[in-house]
Amino acid sequence: MPPDLFGEIDPPHRLLMGPGPVNAHPRVLRAMSADLLGQFDPEMTGYMEQVMALYRPIFGTQNRWTFLIDGTARAAIEASLVSLLAPGDTLLVVDFGRFGLLLREIGERIGAKIEMLSVPWGETVPMDRIAAAIERVAPKVVASVHGDTSTTMAQPLEGLGALCRAAGAYSYVDATATLGGMAIETDKWGIDVVTGGLQKCLGGPSGSAPITISDRAAAHILARRHVERGIARDDLANGAGSRIGSNYFDLAMVMDYWSEKRLNHHTEATTMLYGARECARVALGEGLEARFARHAAAGRAVTAGARGLGLTVYGDDRFRMTNVTGIVIPEGVDGEAVRRRMRDDFEIEIGTAFGPLTGKVWRIGAMGYNAMKHKVLITLGALEAVLRAEGFACEAGAGVDAALRSYEA
Amino acid sequence: MPPDLFGEIDPPHRLLMGPGPVNAHPRVLRAMSADLLGQFDPEMTGYMEQVMALYRPIFGTQNRWTFLIDGTARAAIEASLVSLLAPGDTLLVVDFGRFGLLLREIGERIGAKIEMLSVPWGETVPMDRIAAAIERVAPKVVASVHGDTSTTMAQPLEGLGALCRAAGAYSYVDATATLGGMAIETDKWGIDVVTGGLQKCLGGPSGSAPITISDRAAAHILARRHVERGIARDDLANGAGSRIGSNYFDLAMVMDYWSEKRLNHHTEATTMLYGARECARVALGEGLEARFARHAAAGRAVTAGARGLGLTVYGDDRFRMTNVTGIVIPEGVDGEAVRRRMRDDFEIEIGTAFGPLTGKVWRIGAMGYNAMKHKVLITLGALEAVLRAEGFACEAGAGVDAALRSYEA
Repeated sequence: MPPDLFGEIDPPHRLLMGPGPVNAHPRVLRAMSADLLGQFDPEMTGYMEQVMALYRPIFGTQNRWTFLIDGTARAAIEASLVSLLAPGDTLLVVDFGRFGLLLREIGERIGAKIEMLSVPWGETVPMDRIAAAIERVAPKVVASVHGDTSTTMAQPLEGLGALCRAAGAYSYVDATATLGGMAIETDKWGIDVVTGGLQKCLGGPSGSAPITISDRAAAHILARRHVERGIARDDLANGAGSRIGSNYFDLAMVMDYWSEKRLNHHTEATTMLYGARECARVALGEGLEARFARHAAAGRAVTAGARGLGLTVYGDDRFRMTNVTGIVIPEGVDGEAVRRRMRDDFEIEIGTAFGPLTGKVWRIGAMGYNAMKHKVLITLGALEAVLRAEGFACEAGAGVDAALRSYEA
Repeated sequence: MPPDLFGEIDPPHRLLMGPGPVNAHPRVLRAMSADLLGQFDPEMTGYMEQVMALYRPIFGTQNRWTFLIDGTARAAIEASLVSLLAPGDTLLVVDFGRFGLLLREIGERIGAKIEMLSVPWGETVPMDRIAAAIERVAPKVVASVHGDTSTTMAQPLEGLGALCRAAGAYSYVDATATLGGMAIETDKWGIDVVTGGLQKCLGGPSGSAPITISDRAAAHILARRHVERGIARDDLANGAGSRIGSNYFDLAMVMDYWSEKRLNHHTEATTMLYGARECARVALGEGLEARFARHAAAGRAVTAGARGLGLTVYGDDRFRMTNVTGIVIPEGVDGEAVRRRMRDDFEIEIGTAFGPLTGKVWRIGAMGYNAMKHKVLITLGALEAVLRAEGFACEAGAGVDAALRSYEA
């Protein structure tokens, strides 16, 4: 252990243009420097109420039950599935990438019966195939990712909720990578549970995950309420449903904590809550339509710029996420060497890929505080220089010019 | 939604002298304002390595596997138990308060067979009774809280590890409320898994939970490794043990993430990691012995001050936590009215109680950044004034004077 205990935190000033985390909005980090409050302080519970109100428009919902899970995005995914599903229930997974596989994996550990509706990476799943699968397997829960960063594809979700409700199923959507950057229409789509993360389009740090739950799903979950012995109260009857398989992720208890009952569960992560609150204030202050347009413009510019450099953009244009773009690593180019040079010479991070796409694509994100013209242009200019240094012939200036034209169109 | 979206975060400047969270050390909040890094950036993984090194002395261990769980303290408890226990395994709980009941509750949800070794609240469990219980029930895991804030008692743990190892059991200790404030001797006590939290004696916000795991327990957990399909790699064989019942809390995958393998799991909560790193730097910079002495002095002063005011201190003096003190609410005094006045007139929070102690005791914490003479004295002075206002006769100045004498002794 060095005498200065490794010194003060002092990260390099790096532009994070990967699939997340991205650079945090400075207002979010400033909000997180406020001192703590007791968890049942009226001011603290007031902030909790405000967070609920601020995230409703971000989720496109009127759901009362809109709050935060204290963990990273996948904590909210697991909380949703373990609270909706009991062992033996059928989970239908709409699978078009790594995070579809994660839904399967979490469902398996819960003891659910898994039915996969899978398409090759780079595609999305047609709604008529989802309808047919729901009819065939009669699932308890249908789960889908919205934007799967592993493939950069966004699954169309319009109509999913109606299909599920007609079949008596609950619907779950993982919107980690799109919340605050693409429209999430929880109520219009009729989705029962939607979760997100702060570290993508909301421009905050990971560690707190927004969630919204329909009244219908909340009733199902609250019927599984089993209050901890140490804090049992006469006015809190246990439900008739099966006990939820996790304590930390028991959404019935978390809802009791976020309700006027204020039943103690975990100690709310105060600083992360301050950050989540500011993420929402920044997003709503900008205006959601403007924000979605800013992300779409940045995504179009990345795509145009990559093509201007003679690169191939991965996946189907019709279903592209606006905020993360996959770029096929050209034949003969060492993808990792390019990423290293981007970092070492330009202090810019771009993303690698997972699973079948490992070594085959880079992923460039333009999300939250980084979905900005100058950051896209700087990244494309740097990529051009790095590609040339790595022996890939590309026309000087063509990437930046194409991106600028895209912005001007 | 108001036009200013509820305004900037601006909590009242309140002195938090309850059982936690307490006021964060300003250095911790400042460290958390640094911008983010990509999760596989060499600087980020370097910070992760530093965190591992910084928490080893705080846990009193040489354990390689010393890292953070991304959630509040109870997230680390659940991660420990779900990774150690398979359904049907026997969990012996050393139970002396609410958080012993929480261990039971989490174990039940995992499907473990629960054996409780319980004593009345206010007591601790003699080691010979633990030894007899281990012999009787042959548990897979023995779990105990160190300091249970619900009763303000600290369980002696010397010898527990040896008893468990002799019986082929794993030991788990929840040190949420004592880590960084009382000596935790993981290696000397021979405990296999110990977890903590930041929001008590470490003077940070909740939302990240330090954990340490012995090589022996790590081998057991890694034998249960089941890598997610989306990120499977040829060099990562699955173990022969049963799959862990949670993805988020799968310590085998979390260890792979914190190892040089850097297998992607969650996206590390960067800002919370910065905060956890600074909590440890503050603690080690002060010196652990000095820090424990500071907490002990503050706890003695609270006890002396309460007695000086004619109040009864709850529980057994021999086993008192140094950092949280229970004070019996005198006959005829409205405990909640006192807490309200403390907050409204003095901006000081003191704690209420849970379960059988609800309405019977207050809990005064002096932890982390708040385990300081002036904060103890101010709290006792305020309590005296408030008690008088609520009709309890106490000698003017007697609490503060007794606390000062305790500091001078």
